[in-house]
Amino acid sequence: MAGSSFGKLFTVTTFGESHGSALGVVVDGVPSLLPLTEADIQPFLDRRRPGQNRFTTARSEPDRVKILSGTYEGKTTGCPLAMAVFNEDQHSSDYRNLKDIYRPGHADMTYDLKYGIRDHRGGGRSSGRETIGRVAGGAVASLILNRLGVNVLSWVSSIGPVTCSPDRFDPEHLKKSPLAMPDPEAEKEAAVFLEHCKIARTSAGGTVTCTVTGMKSGIGEPVFDKLDACLGKALFSIGAVKAVEIGSGTQAASMYGHENNDQAGTDENGLPVLLSNHAGGILGGISSGSDIQVKVTFKPTPSISREQSALRPDGSVSPLIIEGRHDPQIPSRAAVVVEAMTAMTVLDLMMINMSSTMDSLIRFYG
Amino acid sequence: MAGSSFGKLFTVTTFGESHGSALGVVVDGVPSLLPLTEADIQPFLDRRRPGQNRFTTARSEPDRVKILSGTYEGKTTGCPLAMAVFNEDQHSSDYRNLKDIYRPGHADMTYDLKYGIRDHRGGGRSSGRETIGRVAGGAVASLILNRLGVNVLSWVSSIGPVTCSPDRFDPEHLKKSPLAMPDPEAEKEAAVFLEHCKIARTSAGGTVTCTVTGMKSGIGEPVFDKLDACLGKALFSIGAVKAVEIGSGTQAASMYGHENNDQAGTDENGLPVLLSNHAGGILGGISSGSDIQVKVTFKPTPSISREQSALRPDGSVSPLIIEGRHDPQIPSRAAVVVEAMTAMTVLDLMMINMSSTMDSLIRFYG
Amino acid sequence: MAGSSFGKLFTVTTFGESHGSALGVVVDGVPSLLPLTEADIQPFLDRRRPGQNRFTTARSEPDRVKILSGTYEGKTTGCPLAMAVFNEDQHSSDYRNLKDIYRPGHADMTYDLKYGIRDHRGGGRSSGRETIGRVAGGAVASLILNRLGVNVLSWVSSIGPVTCSPDRFDPEHLKKSPLAMPDPEAEKEAAVFLEHCKIARTSAGGTVTCTVTGMKSGIGEPVFDKLDACLGKALFSIGAVKAVEIGSGTQAASMYGHENNDQAGTDENGLPVLLSNHAGGILGGISSGSDIQVKVTFKPTPSISREQSALRPDGSVSPLIIEGRHDPQIPSRAAVVVEAMTAMTVLDLMMINMSSTMDSLIRFYG
Amino acid sequence: MAGSSFGKLFTVTTFGESHGSALGVVVDGVPSLLPLTEADIQPFLDRRRPGQNRFTTARSEPDRVKILSGTYEGKTTGCPLAMAVFNEDQHSSDYRNLKDIYRPGHADMTYDLKYGIRDHRGGGRSSGRETIGRVAGGAVASLILNRLGVNVLSWVSSIGPVTCSPDRFDPEHLKKSPLAMPDPEAEKEAAVFLEHCKIARTSAGGTVTCTVTGMKSGIGEPVFDKLDACLGKALFSIGAVKAVEIGSGTQAASMYGHENNDQAGTDENGLPVLLSNHAGGILGGISSGSDIQVKVTFKPTPSISREQSALRPDGSVSPLIIEGRHDPQIPSRAAVVVEAMTAMTVLDLMMINMSSTMDSLIRFYG
Repeated sequence: MAGSSFGKLFTVTTFGESHGSALGVVVDGVPSLLPLTEADIQPFLDRRRPGQNRFTTARSEPDRVKILSGTYEGKTTGCPLAMAVFNEDQHSSDYRNLKDIYRPGHADMTYDLKYGIRDHRGGGRSSGRETIGRVAGGAVASLILNRLGVNVLSWVSSIGPVTCSPDRFDPEHLKKSPLAMPDPEAEKEAAVFLEHCKIARTSAGGTVTCTVTGMKSGIGEPVFDKLDACLGKALFSIGAVKAVEIGSGTQAASMYGHENNDQAGTDENGLPVLLSNHAGGILGGISSGSDIQVKVTFKPTPSISREQSALRPDGSVSPLIIEGRHDPQIPSRAAVVVEAMTAMTVLDLMMINMSSTMDSLIRFYG
Repeated sequence: MAGSSFGKLFTVTTFGESHGSALGVVVDGVPSLLPLTEADIQPFLDRRRPGQNRFTTARSEPDRVKILSGTYEGKTTGCPLAMAVFNEDQHSSDYRNLKDIYRPGHADMTYDLKYGIRDHRGGGRSSGRETIGRVAGGAVASLILNRLGVNVLSWVSSIGPVTCSPDRFDPEHLKKSPLAMPDPEAEKEAAVFLEHCKIARTSAGGTVTCTVTGMKSGIGEPVFDKLDACLGKALFSIGAVKAVEIGSGTQAASMYGHENNDQAGTDENGLPVLLSNHAGGILGGISSGSDIQVKVTFKPTPSISREQSALRPDGSVSPLIIEGRHDPQIPSRAAVVVEAMTAMTVLDLMMINMSSTMDSLIRFYG
Repeated sequence: MAGSSFGKLFTVTTFGESHGSALGVVVDGVPSLLPLTEADIQPFLDRRRPGQNRFTTARSEPDRVKILSGTYEGKTTGCPLAMAVFNEDQHSSDYRNLKDIYRPGHADMTYDLKYGIRDHRGGGRSSGRETIGRVAGGAVASLILNRLGVNVLSWVSSIGPVTCSPDRFDPEHLKKSPLAMPDPEAEKEAAVFLEHCKIARTSAGGTVTCTVTGMKSGIGEPVFDKLDACLGKALFSIGAVKAVEIGSGTQAASMYGHENNDQAGTDENGLPVLLSNHAGGILGGISSGSDIQVKVTFKPTPSISREQSALRPDGSVSPLIIEGRHDPQIPSRAAVVVEAMTAMTVLDLMMINMSSTMDSLIRFYG
Repeated sequence: MAGSSFGKLFTVTTFGESHGSALGVVVDGVPSLLPLTEADIQPFLDRRRPGQNRFTTARSEPDRVKILSGTYEGKTTGCPLAMAVFNEDQHSSDYRNLKDIYRPGHADMTYDLKYGIRDHRGGGRSSGRETIGRVAGGAVASLILNRLGVNVLSWVSSIGPVTCSPDRFDPEHLKKSPLAMPDPEAEKEAAVFLEHCKIARTSAGGTVTCTVTGMKSGIGEPVFDKLDACLGKALFSIGAVKAVEIGSGTQAASMYGHENNDQAGTDENGLPVLLSNHAGGILGGISSGSDIQVKVTFKPTPSISREQSALRPDGSVSPLIIEGRHDPQIPSRAAVVVEAMTAMTVLDLMMINMSSTMDSLIRFYG
């Protein structure tokens, strides 16, 4: 595995498996003099924690983050910031019956095909717990972006057939919403739908929407490290993601050019603005200064308690019932991961952009 | 711009602008002893060329590729392979009226915001002509993959409201289809729709679908360089792409877990197989050996001859009519670009995968 | 700081400061199925530990390594291998008097100039303790190389004016030598010289020599990632290194071409061989199969108890006497670090080399 | 070959072989709005050209550079800058007798071992002509650095036994010196020595010294991308380099700590300064603001007309006399290459340093 690092100047390297002794991250390229303690990171991790309500898994995982290096007297030093969550409970015996079978929709088979070995306990490296490192790293990126006036916000925009209405977007509700949905009515409906899924021994898919407001213009490096390309990689690197859309997304396929092009006009103060944002804030791979708009599709949780037909390492096919309690949907816990990956991507490209013109270099060094 | 390279071991670096003196590519990491001449590359470039029919632009661009380095006596040497297409016709005066206005849906504004200068002739670096380098590089990747039994194929799966039917997929038709559509009936309908778009002075969006057959298992490097993540970056780096979907894609959001999980069964010979491919050939970021399935949404061509409302560099808003003939849709010429980016991504990750186990190292070096 | 990672496929990311809570490393790209426990790593760390004898510092640092992730049932899984040493003793008060002064020959000033903050306790990130992560990572590389028949060995070849004689090279003596010198007579002389340095309140420079035997041919990627170039970076990244020489090194400047060229001849069995190794095993940046030969010069320990004249952050100049016991020379503890950096470099380039020819690809995948 | 790119933000990718159709470079990450035409680059290339005097080779190589992309109306646009020199004269037949023999001291054998094929004409990719791309890329870096007040200068400090005296350093002489030596007396002596080498059918080694003045402080990214580490890689990537020294270099091995540490004092104006520069301007891998001082050792030209004993691809040993005229020493033509690699390294790390502190980010974006 040679792919555990993300980012060129703001570089996040994660480590750890579901039932290993620790999961964590080394964040390199953190600018010095950012005030930072564990109390700044913990709230981000708490958002991805299960056990908050009946629709997320019941296992208790306090997941307290420890900063191992990179700060001094409450500030970052410019040195790599290592953070870890130590696993307290490693009941690997719970997973014994999964040792010799590949769960449908999981990475069990592919890890085994690639490495000839796998840590089957709780999914090993392919577990959702791997995102602990991402969220801790993304928290640092978000805190830096906030000080630059850039804000990344994500929420669950749909679960199964239930979709949040933009008209009922309530940011205050979102902060305390157990399903991470900003529309209280949709959340109630979604709760009913998830109850149905549980009874039906199945699970639901859904979507997470993410916006970046206060976005600077000029961010993104054509032609391969475009902002949308880097976001595409960042978001598809999250487990269970099957689609990424920017701006008008898949709808662009059935739009006319005169509909999809964002026309210029003037706002109430007579200032020039774009009257729509089908571009999602990105043209030619570079941010325009409009809000970034991204939507991510998550597949339904693959672990379901219904009987399935699974492959075994020896090539045989076998019925499988997965025991234990599992989240009936992924987006509610993954919203903060989408936010983390988006924040890292934007910050990294903002750092890279600083040397784009002679004028920037001369102002800095001249 | 610090983003003109793609890939870690098989590395493609493109250069050139629409109306500069040459466009091209340096492909590094090409394995030695691949038979290769310009005649092997040219057919790939011909597929992205305009002027083939009335639905693509009328400018004549022969685009003959020249190999500048990296081969000796008709074989690659392991040294960087530089290839270029020299521009014969650089009528920059055609574009004079676009110097002081930002075309809606184009990168004019964002390049200017980032760099404080732009080559406005034909879109400069953000022109579709930039893909010449990608297609030449992708051709090399495809030729290598073919020798390993891996085949990448892409086609236009929809234009506006017209969608190809899997039941009418005709590979022979695809080879000669002017719209790069495999379904002859859909193509006829699409032609009528595009005629309508022209009359209505607008353009159409569409989708390109790409599959990789003969795919090896074990390809992709969790957790950030997953196969789907790298494909996401590769495909979003193509101009005008607004969505990327893998396997069940956006449909996964409204599927149940028991529907989306690919169940195991047996084929007609009694051998174990997966009975569906909602995963699109990738689980946990690693290929399973099933076909890779990707779908890409392209927005409608932003250049339309209808009057639009555009921003100017001085902040004013101005009406704009774009002269000249422009493709009424992008997918037909972009299909080969999707293929190129997919081939590069798969090959690069196949190279990286070679050192994944001690057994591989010992067989190679022991 | 964006430079805490080394290597492209075998990637080592270190973290930690002298007096932080932990120092460690994430090793990514470790092939699966390597038997590995903490007991395999600890002996390498023990070689860089102080307190072994009177010529190395007296602080007690047991430095027990913990594996946090990446192994399962005593074997590597292909997942990132995180290893840490937790600091037990963090007496930062010892360093209080160094908070407002820049020690000559140390990185105190430059860290402050760059970051506007520094952890002055024990040198912070620029401490020799940072090499814990390198040595742990290098141990993994060495263990892998050994299984491929490649061996990296380093030793102290000189301290001050005392130079080891190739004629008295005793590998058994080296294993137990407190100064890491293979020549028992030179070691005795060096001990006397170091006693003199201590009395004179100063320190000594020296050199470390490193060879790689069983080296494979074809390793190194021209033109920028040549084997010698990558070794140059690896070795100059070690603190206190002022020169790196390969093969004939600085002596090549005063040699004639006919002297420096390695001539072909035959060995006792009549087989063709090169009769000398002025190339140090590398031609055109690629290994020839001959032994790699490298020599590294370390400056004298900058911490000396003699009064010095130092700069302060406020720009004033001040006398300084550094308290405490410090190693009178660096090479004896750094030899294992040279070995670690060499092993990582060779292994990474061996992995990269695996896709150099079509034949390799076809054998692996075809 | 996967190593043809250098630099992270200012990225130089070279291509081309001695007798291919073109050699060149793609420079990515060039800041926009730098005035640049071919006339700015050509003088740098002229400095590496042979045929200037009797001590460099007699082949005529005008080597006119062409800019293929990346500028518009005489200024850089931020887009990748492609530059090429087209080979006019490709008399490959001259080299026919070298097809089946490995010249001692050359890369012939190692390229063949690695790739199973080699372009034997003039050394192929391992020819000195490969440095055309480096010098063109380095010219761009130097021009940018000059505008930031940073100057890189290199010269031949010794040829064989003849060493330039710092006391006779004449910058005006250096500009027109055929041997690139700043000391007129040493140059005369060197010329006599080279005449002797020619008569003796052999060649001479030598050294190139390089300084960076006006250097900014804070440049370099610990712990692996230290300024000295990156310089080490840059300089060892030049053909024929056998040693790199920074500051006191190999002399540090025999110095005492109190000698090698640079002590603080005051200059004639009473301002604090360091009284020596044994550090070579770098402490802990970060620039201090003092001049950077580097010395590079080149081995003697391996092509000599004396009979040698060489290996053949079939494993036999054979006498070899290399025909044709060859430079009797490398440093005079390589000095500008040393300058180029140093300039690229310093500029790249200056770009990376721009995001080192929160203050920098806030000033740029806040």
